[in-house]
Amino acid sequence: MLLLTLDPTSAPPLYEQIYRGIIRLVDDGTLLPGFHLPATRRLAATLGVNRTTVFRAYQELWARGYLESRPGSYSTVRRPGQLPARGTVPQPAQVRWNELAPPRNRELVGALKDLPSRPGKGDGLIDFSSLMADRDLCPADDLRRAVKHVLVSQGKDLLGYGDPQGYRPLREAIAQRLRTHGVTASADEILVTGGSQQALDLVLRTFTRPGDRVAVEAPTYSMAHPLLRLHDVEVAEVPMRPDGLDLDVLTAVCAERRPVLVYTIPTFHNPTGTTTSQTHREHLLALCRQHRIPLVEDGFDEELKYFGKAVLPIKSMDREGLVIYLGTFSKVVFSGLRVGWVAAPAACVQHLLAIYRFSNLSGNTLGQAAMARFIDEGLYEVHLRRLHRAYRGRMQAMLKGMAAHMPPGVEWTRPAGGYTLWVQIPPAAGTEAELEARLRHHGVAVVAGNHFFCSPQPMPAFRLSIANLKEPQIAEGCLRLGRALAEAMEGRHAA
Amino acid sequence: MLLLTLDPTSAPPLYEQIYRGIIRLVDDGTLLPGFHLPATRRLAATLGVNRTTVFRAYQELWARGYLESRPGSYSTVRRPGQLPARGTVPQPAQVRWNELAPPRNRELVGALKDLPSRPGKGDGLIDFSSLMADRDLCPADDLRRAVKHVLVSQGKDLLGYGDPQGYRPLREAIAQRLRTHGVTASADEILVTGGSQQALDLVLRTFTRPGDRVAVEAPTYSMAHPLLRLHDVEVAEVPMRPDGLDLDVLTAVCAERRPVLVYTIPTFHNPTGTTTSQTHREHLLALCRQHRIPLVEDGFDEELKYFGKAVLPIKSMDREGLVIYLGTFSKVVFSGLRVGWVAAPAACVQHLLAIYRFSNLSGNTLGQAAMARFIDEGLYEVHLRRLHRAYRGRMQAMLKGMAAHMPPGVEWTRPAGGYTLWVQIPPAAGTEAELEARLRHHGVAVVAGNHFFCSPQPMPAFRLSIANLKEPQIAEGCLRLGRALAEAMEGRHAA
Repeated sequence: MLLLTLDPTSAPPLYEQIYRGIIRLVDDGTLLPGFHLPATRRLAATLGVNRTTVFRAYQELWARGYLESRPGSYSTVRRPGQLPARGTVPQPAQVRWNELAPPRNRELVGALKDLPSRPGKGDGLIDFSSLMADRDLCPADDLRRAVKHVLVSQGKDLLGYGDPQGYRPLREAIAQRLRTHGVTASADEILVTGGSQQALDLVLRTFTRPGDRVAVEAPTYSMAHPLLRLHDVEVAEVPMRPDGLDLDVLTAVCAERRPVLVYTIPTFHNPTGTTTSQTHREHLLALCRQHRIPLVEDGFDEELKYFGKAVLPIKSMDREGLVIYLGTFSKVVFSGLRVGWVAAPAACVQHLLAIYRFSNLSGNTLGQAAMARFIDEGLYEVHLRRLHRAYRGRMQAMLKGMAAHMPPGVEWTRPAGGYTLWVQIPPAAGTEAELEARLRHHGVAVVAGNHFFCSPQPMPAFRLSIANLKEPQIAEGCLRLGRALAEAMEGRHAA
Repeated sequence: MLLLTLDPTSAPPLYEQIYRGIIRLVDDGTLLPGFHLPATRRLAATLGVNRTTVFRAYQELWARGYLESRPGSYSTVRRPGQLPARGTVPQPAQVRWNELAPPRNRELVGALKDLPSRPGKGDGLIDFSSLMADRDLCPADDLRRAVKHVLVSQGKDLLGYGDPQGYRPLREAIAQRLRTHGVTASADEILVTGGSQQALDLVLRTFTRPGDRVAVEAPTYSMAHPLLRLHDVEVAEVPMRPDGLDLDVLTAVCAERRPVLVYTIPTFHNPTGTTTSQTHREHLLALCRQHRIPLVEDGFDEELKYFGKAVLPIKSMDREGLVIYLGTFSKVVFSGLRVGWVAAPAACVQHLLAIYRFSNLSGNTLGQAAMARFIDEGLYEVHLRRLHRAYRGRMQAMLKGMAAHMPPGVEWTRPAGGYTLWVQIPPAAGTEAELEARLRHHGVAVVAGNHFFCSPQPMPAFRLSIANLKEPQIAEGCLRLGRALAEAMEGRHAA
């Protein structure tokens, strides 16, 4: 006889009360394996419930392994999860994932914790740390209309797997835009990715092996470092000079042991804001050509030129097809859509595509189609002009503020575009960490220079970004920066 | 004196005619490096054009490296791209990307070409090859409303970088759905990915090293093979039996050399359609526990149960936290949105998240938010019921058709859910390729069994998918299949 008490007024539904009751009886040994439960009809009658309630409880018991799984029969009790494995079963501890993962992963989990934390808001903090473009400028309504349009006009076509190389009209729109930068690439020479981080990852997956050497600028994009670590490559840091990476050092690096890739951000470099000259670009390309090293050109903010003459991407001079160009919409328009791309010779794209397809199947077609529509409607051009107007003024305010407030001895770059500039402070003023804390005390958040290097640097430096600040904040921020640094250089202590 | 002829009536704008003319003169040696171009004002007067037209032409020349880059001056001619690199410059050939990539990549580029091609339409072909769900059932309008809603209510918040672990309300909705399958996971134990292929890739990136051993079912998901190849792991194929992978073989595999992961699809297995029993699941989990091997459970079509009793995922029995569960919305609703997930212990998710973040920054927040809205509104449940109604009938039609038309000697599985079943044909009937061609001749497309194995198999087999077929087509398809196979087994030749 099965002793179960049900409470029709309590919260768990009746079938749940039944199966939980039976599980309790099995777990505490009242019902032994092999015991035959009553037929559903009989138990239903005994308990005064509907037969389907009992049936559902038995189904649940079966699903949880408390009943023998003979088809059509739910009657014989068993105990789940207590089967001996073939061989002896030592009692297992909890899984130690740290031990199961390669040691390098532990570093990466650590690196996750070392990422610069977002400074809080409130308290009038001026945040020079963020690279997220001002959301007040984000054309969200235009995007909504673009999404609506593509869903209404193409609907279901966009909701199945798309072209793994990327939605073709978007590839054509990207090719078209690249032509305005002097780059000739067909839609076949473009692969759309989920952002330019994914594009860089893909290039590294495709063309590096563990232990290979990759040359990068020092400083460079901070999220490139953990990514390079993930690929177990040896990083050759090439110092940045006022006109881009030091070509003599790169020459020596190549002579010593050939890098398999050179990674460069020649235009509005992150973090320094430097744009290299035509001559520098030619020398760099010639050097890569000489050693047959693919040049990965990251044009993440190519479109953000505010002043002065245009310098075309290195890719525009690339007659041998040695340059792998990375682009993205993230820094100009919608970072959350995750749309970036690679422009490279078709044979190179085929390699990238193989890795991309087998690791992703395809990208997010809806987002790609919406982006294509946004460009085709001319909204991208309009947005870009708006962005230029806004940031030209902000960068001017920044450069003016720096000139007005920096104490002697402090050096900084004069970017012609992008969001970032780079400040170097004489070591006598304190360590980077001390200076960062002092700036914070004065109500200014920055990103410490060490995030942009592999190896520790003697000279304290900071990246200042104007992406998320308006002119009055920039002016006030420069004033505070100047005060804080002057204080540090005079050796006074923060309160 | 500068000899340029302009044609105001021709297509290229005047500034372009000017700079192209000058480039021609430099390239053919008429203008030598060091030549001083006339001031813009003078040249404008000479040519009878606006001064800004000349200015723009000079800008372009500068950008293309045909003028010295002294600030503010555009006057001195130079030749671009002809600078000697430091050291000697051998004349480079075109880049051979095949040689720059690791040899394994060449295989993958080859594998890209070996993927089963989509059969054409028209000519009344019945396509049992596609795993894309019937687009007539796709709730595109509901998705459009969900996208609109989230863009209107959250707009700009969704268009910046999102939570790298995935949009939290979506993680909560996934956790809630997993509970209906007996799996208890919190939002912290879920990582949203761009589909379940990316999730599997991420697990392999995180927990395998080249040369490690990974145990998989044979046959298994065809796109797992090139992915495993990408990771340079050794694949231990464990044959599928009527109740799932052969546990004795897996035991021997573990004894010989411990795999670092076991990959299994216990429910509506792709390609066979097999669902393993509770007992099999317990044995498999116990074996993994014994050897401390993380079990990767791919529940890609968990939700597609049409008949019979529920079997809960192995993850639901996982008390030690050894199971890494992969899920996706691609097979049930919108494959093009690219939303999948991993459910695993928090410590495991931290490892996955580190790799994910450094290789992707974040996922596509807009798609994730739309999916969350779609679930929260109950539309997912409604859609699932609709899908069940449709495919229950289709799977019944399939099983009925197979029973009616298969010649003796042909064997097939009886799936209780999902889209696929598996047919094995006596080798005497011909090779797989011959049989595939014969079926095609009879107007039926299938996927050849060899796509689902690493190593060649003696027994011809096919995967049949009902994902994209309606009942009458299924009935007709089975008739054709039966005829074609009967013909093959009688040794007659296709016309």
